[in-house]
Amino acid sequence: MPVNLSAPVAAQLLPVAGVSLGIAEAGIKRSGRKDLLVIKLDDGATVAGVFTTNRFCAAPVTIAKNHLAAGKGVRALVVNTGNANAGTGEQGMDAALSTCTELAKLLGCVPEQVLPYSTGVIMEPLPVDKIVAGMPQAIGNLKADNWFDAAQAIMTTDIVAKAVSRQVQIGGKTITVTGISKGSGMIHPNMATMLGYIATDAAIAQQQLQQMVSEAANRSFNCITVDGDTSTNDALMLIATGKSGVAIDSANRAAMQAVITEVATVLAQAIVRDGEGATKFITIKVEGGKDEAECKKIGYAIAHSPLVKTAFFASDPNLGRILAAIGYAGVGDLNVATLKLFLDDVLVAENGGRAASYQEEDGQRVMKQSDITIRVVLNRGAVNATLWTCDFSYDYVKINASYRS
Amino acid sequence: MPVNLSAPVAAQLLPVAGVSLGIAEAGIKRSGRKDLLVIKLDDGATVAGVFTTNRFCAAPVTIAKNHLAAGKGVRALVVNTGNANAGTGEQGMDAALSTCTELAKLLGCVPEQVLPYSTGVIMEPLPVDKIVAGMPQAIGNLKADNWFDAAQAIMTTDIVAKAVSRQVQIGGKTITVTGISKGSGMIHPNMATMLGYIATDAAIAQQQLQQMVSEAANRSFNCITVDGDTSTNDALMLIATGKSGVAIDSANRAAMQAVITEVATVLAQAIVRDGEGATKFITIKVEGGKDEAECKKIGYAIAHSPLVKTAFFASDPNLGRILAAIGYAGVGDLNVATLKLFLDDVLVAENGGRAASYQEEDGQRVMKQSDITIRVVLNRGAVNATLWTCDFSYDYVKINASYRS
Repeated sequence: MPVNLSAPVAAQLLPVAGVSLGIAEAGIKRSGRKDLLVIKLDDGATVAGVFTTNRFCAAPVTIAKNHLAAGKGVRALVVNTGNANAGTGEQGMDAALSTCTELAKLLGCVPEQVLPYSTGVIMEPLPVDKIVAGMPQAIGNLKADNWFDAAQAIMTTDIVAKAVSRQVQIGGKTITVTGISKGSGMIHPNMATMLGYIATDAAIAQQQLQQMVSEAANRSFNCITVDGDTSTNDALMLIATGKSGVAIDSANRAAMQAVITEVATVLAQAIVRDGEGATKFITIKVEGGKDEAECKKIGYAIAHSPLVKTAFFASDPNLGRILAAIGYAGVGDLNVATLKLFLDDVLVAENGGRAASYQEEDGQRVMKQSDITIRVVLNRGAVNATLWTCDFSYDYVKINASYRS
Repeated sequence: MPVNLSAPVAAQLLPVAGVSLGIAEAGIKRSGRKDLLVIKLDDGATVAGVFTTNRFCAAPVTIAKNHLAAGKGVRALVVNTGNANAGTGEQGMDAALSTCTELAKLLGCVPEQVLPYSTGVIMEPLPVDKIVAGMPQAIGNLKADNWFDAAQAIMTTDIVAKAVSRQVQIGGKTITVTGISKGSGMIHPNMATMLGYIATDAAIAQQQLQQMVSEAANRSFNCITVDGDTSTNDALMLIATGKSGVAIDSANRAAMQAVITEVATVLAQAIVRDGEGATKFITIKVEGGKDEAECKKIGYAIAHSPLVKTAFFASDPNLGRILAAIGYAGVGDLNVATLKLFLDDVLVAENGGRAASYQEEDGQRVMKQSDITIRVVLNRGAVNATLWTCDFSYDYVKINASYRS
C-alpha cells in the first residue's frame, strides 16, 4: 500500500485556464478502464519538456521531441496507457505519427501540433485503431475541471492517482499550477519520470519555460528511484497558457520557479510513496560533498542496494549494509574515517565504524517508522543532495513477476 | 535451491602438497557450526591475491594487503565466518591484528606471515576471544585432505559448499589445482568475490602469480553478480606451493593460466547458482562491442535490473525489459536499430523492435529452462564479454529481510 499517500481530492484540483482534459476507455489493455487522455490547449500556450535518456526511447518520445522542435505551437497532448510503444522500431514510429495525424484531424490542427505519450508494456505493437476509435469519446468530455479523471487515466501499476494544485501571488494576481504524474515501477528517471504534466496560467516564453522545466525536474523527478530502471518513456511536460495575463520575467521568475518545483516535487515523491510494493518512504540526504555528482553517486548506491532496501522492509537496523553501499558508490578518494551516518536523529557510524553512542534499540525505533531519513555527512565539501526512494518487499517481486499476466 | 549445482564430492577434492587445512567450531555466530578455517602453508609457497575495491573495506582486507606487501612469506591464512569485521574502525584493525598475532604464536611464525579474512555481519565488533579460543581445535585437525570441510567452514548464507579440483600435465608432470569459494548475497565482485582460495603445487614466482590471479579474477569472479552489492570483504587468493617441482615460465604459463581460470570460473559460477533465492542461472553474452567496458556496462545493466530479474523468476518472456536495460546502460552513442537480442537460439529483437520471426511461445519455451543465455549482438566492434547472474525471487527478499534474526 502507498506510504502515507492518499488519493487527491478532486475538488482541490484547480482548473488552469486554457487547458481542457478529456478521457476515454479505449480498451487498449482491457475494457472498462480509463486508458486514453487528451489534453487540449488553447492557442498561444507554450510547452516545454524533458525526456528519458534511454537509448531505447519509445517512438512517442522521438515524435514528441520532433514536434516540439518544429515550433508550430502545441494544441494537444495525447496519452495512452497499456502499451509503451517502445522497442517497436519503424512500425512504432508510424503508429505514434498516425495517432497525432488522426487527433489533429478531429481538432482541426496539423499533426506537428500534437504531442504523443505512451506507457505500458514494452515491445508490443501499439493498437492504433483502438486509440483512434477512443478519440471521439475523449474529445466529447473535454473540460477544464477534469484533472482528477486525467490523473486516473494515466495510471498503470499505480495504486493511487497523483495530482496536486498550488497557487502563488505574482504581480497582484493569482497564478495557478496544477500537475499530474504516474509511475510506480521502472522508476529511475534520467530527465523526468514516467509521465508528468504540469500546467500554469502564467505566460512564460519558450526558452525560459524549457529552463524552468529542467530546473524543476532536476530537483524532483531526477531525485527519485524505485528500482533503478530508467524507463524508455519518461517525460515531464510543462505547459504555460498565459491566460492569467501575468508574464514571467527576471523579476518574478524565482517565485514562479519555486511553485513549479514544489508541484513537481509533490508529484515525484508521490511516485515513490506509491512505489511497487513500497512499505517505507526513505529520504536520503548526502551532505558536505565536493560536488553534486558524488553526493548523488552515494545516494543512489544506497537507494539501489537490494540489501539496504530489504533491511528497511524488515525494519531491521542492519545498517552496515549502508556503509557497504557508501563504500562501493565509486567515490575513489572517499575517506570513510571522517564521514558520519545518521538514521533520523540517531548517529549510527563515525570514525570508520559504529558510533560509541549507538544503541540497537535507537536504530530499531527509527526503522519501525514508515517515513525515514538516512543522512550521510561526508565532511569534504559544501554541496548537498537529497534523493527519495522506497524499500523492497515481497510485493515488488509479486507485482513484477505477474505484470503481464 | 541452487540452480543445477550439487555439493562437491569430498573424494574428488585433491590435496595440494604443501597445504594443510584445519577447521573449528568457534561459536562466533552460534554454536555447533564450523566457522573457523586455518590454511597452513609449508615454507617456500608464494601467495598473491586480489581484494575488494569497496572504500569501506573490512579491517582484515587492509591487514592482509599489508602483510602480503611486507614480503616475509605467508605461512597461514585464517578465515572466520559470522562476522565481517567491516565498518569497525580502529577497533576492527586491532582485532584483525590480534588474530594474526595469536595464530603466529601457535604456529611459530611472525604475525606478518599470517593473512586474515572475515565474512558475515557488517559493523559488529569481531569476537577475537572466541576466534583465538578456537585456534587450537583448528590446528589440531590440520590435514592436506580437508578441502571439503574447509569449503563448509567458510559458508554463510550459502546452501551448498563450493569446491573443485583440476589437474593438468606440464613438463611431463601432473600439476594439481584445488579451490574453494563462498558467497551467495552481496555479490558484485570488483576485484574478486566474497572469498575464494585456490592452491596449486606448481612453483610460480610472486610477480607472475599476481598477474595470474588478476587474470583469473577478471575472467571469473569479476564477471558475476547476484544483487549488485560489492562486498566490503571480497578476496581471491592464489597459493603456489612449488611442491610438484614444476616451475611456471613463459613456455608453460598459458596452460597453467587456463586451469587456474577454469577452477576460478567453476567457483564463481557456483556462487551465482547458489545466489540467494536463485531459481535461474543466466549467462549474459554481449558481443560485437567497441571495448570490454561497454560490453560489461550493458551486461551489468541487464544483470542488475530488478525488472529483468523478476521476469526471469516468473518465466515470463517480458523481454522489452531487457531492451530498456540495454538502453539505459550508459552507452551514449548506441544505435538500437542495429543490435540484435537473442534468448538462447531465439532471435527476439532487431531493427529497434521485436523480430518479425519472434513467437511468444519460443520465448516462453526458453524462459522455462533453469539455465538460460541472453545474447546481445551490438554489431559495432570486435570485443565480447560474458557475465553470469541469477533471477530475483521472493526468497531473495525473505533471506535478506531476516538475515540477522
